[in-house]
Amino acid sequence: MSRDGTTRSLELYLRERKANIDKALDVYLPKTDTYPPAIFEATRYSVFAGGKRLRPILCVAAAEAVGGREEQVLPVACAIELIHTYSLIHDDLPAMDDDDFRRGRPTSHKVYGEGIAILAGDALLTEAFYLMSRADLMADVDADRRLMVINEVSRAAGCFGMVGGQVADLQSEGAAVDEETLHYIHVHKTAALISVSLRAGALLANAGSGDLQALTNYGRKIGLAFQIADDILDIESTREVLGKDTGSDEERRKMTYPALFGVERSRHKAGELVNGALVDLERCDERAWPLREIAAFILERKS
Amino acid sequence: MSRDGTTRSLELYLRERKANIDKALDVYLPKTDTYPPAIFEATRYSVFAGGKRLRPILCVAAAEAVGGREEQVLPVACAIELIHTYSLIHDDLPAMDDDDFRRGRPTSHKVYGEGIAILAGDALLTEAFYLMSRADLMADVDADRRLMVINEVSRAAGCFGMVGGQVADLQSEGAAVDEETLHYIHVHKTAALISVSLRAGALLANAGSGDLQALTNYGRKIGLAFQIADDILDIESTREVLGKDTGSDEERRKMTYPALFGVERSRHKAGELVNGALVDLERCDERAWPLREIAAFILERKS
Repeated sequence: MSRDGTTRSLELYLRERKANIDKALDVYLPKTDTYPPAIFEATRYSVFAGGKRLRPILCVAAAEAVGGREEQVLPVACAIELIHTYSLIHDDLPAMDDDDFRRGRPTSHKVYGEGIAILAGDALLTEAFYLMSRADLMADVDADRRLMVINEVSRAAGCFGMVGGQVADLQSEGAAVDEETLHYIHVHKTAALISVSLRAGALLANAGSGDLQALTNYGRKIGLAFQIADDILDIESTREVLGKDTGSDEERRKMTYPALFGVERSRHKAGELVNGALVDLERCDERAWPLREIAAFILERKS
Repeated sequence: MSRDGTTRSLELYLRERKANIDKALDVYLPKTDTYPPAIFEATRYSVFAGGKRLRPILCVAAAEAVGGREEQVLPVACAIELIHTYSLIHDDLPAMDDDDFRRGRPTSHKVYGEGIAILAGDALLTEAFYLMSRADLMADVDADRRLMVINEVSRAAGCFGMVGGQVADLQSEGAAVDEETLHYIHVHKTAALISVSLRAGALLANAGSGDLQALTNYGRKIGLAFQIADDILDIESTREVLGKDTGSDEERRKMTYPALFGVERSRHKAGELVNGALVDLERCDERAWPLREIAAFILERKS
């Protein structure tokens, strides 16, 4: 029971938030009857491929943790999901990780061909910035603050964030990678966007600097824990559960936490990060309960 | 001689503006000693490949035409050049136009491999939005107006602009294409970014709605004229002058204006567009002289 006496359930919270995000994405993304249809089909195919919507949910939960409302941040939350989706499409390409399946379905380039898959990624990345800069949405948020959010999200997505991480990842395949490089890859490829999801939600909800810093620290830690958990799942899960080829990291001699430290030490490391993230949230009140439960959930997830 | 008695020369104007834009790009883009170096090398390789900087120059010239200053618009002008460069890198990929040379040098994927080339494009597109949203630049421009510019640029770059045009172009290869489709491709793939370059410059310089509309119309027309001139050059120029394989459109059975209407009718069409663009500028005063001369220059250029 939460303080206000209502039963709180993370499962219910995640389901409701995901439903609202899916609905908003459907409204924001152009329909497939638009010309040229291939690009609208391809972008929707990947956006509505059954993602968990972790990043936009974290964005909304961060806003709520500091007293903001879901409607204030929904466009930015959805924009971050579009950026996440673009990165998956491009990462799956033959010239990158060369994956044929994602979430149990053929990847974009297997369905639409490489050219359209590259363009679908480009379109989603561009659409994210279009969405964040729309004047008809989030009119109650200060324009300077909205520019700041666009700036932070672009930083997290670019060379000093996801792109940098993917480059290091691509170049480390088959090579002997040290802990420092592995840390760089995980922090930039995964944790940067997760962390900025929380910052964006907090900034749009006018968080004070102390709360903003706490949510940033929480984000970095659960982002890293999430990636370690993902690497462990890649080894332990089966394709049926995960919806993509497993053991592919090992096959590709891709460097991962479990490969470097073994599964047990990796699990311990992820647990330490989650505990640290919970300490970061100590200054936040009861409204941060979903963030606390999501942190624990990261260690338990099976897909 | 211009009204104020100074000698005006388009050649000098273009050279000076290009120098300032090149200098600004060098300042804005991270150095190659940053980790991971491959991505910073690849982005700089394509950005500093000898481009004419037409789009950023148009952005600056539009601002000046309505009384603005170069410094006010330089970050956005450079951001538009980054978007143009990203589109060239991705268009040249084997899954798209499969071009080995651009501006006399091997294309990005020939030098860095396909994976890094895709990521270099992604990085430049993302960096463009980072640049346009930096709080330390253009501090004297109203935040709402800066959001509006980001919104317009992203629209021109996305599914309803460049990406849409490239999709239609990709799908029309080897197919019988009608005039309507060809027009769609040119308007979206080329004219959209050229037109928004002018709009962005004008918006940042607080242009009135009449001037803004005039510059928009001018941009659409010279954008289309530029593409027609480009298609004619592809047929008539030699590889030595142009720095890329010529006749490649024909070889690929790519639909172009000259292929559909012949060279003479295409040249006539481009001339009509330029004349129309000059009519659009009639409401502008002497400060629009570079825009007037650039329009004429588009028909005369040899590379």
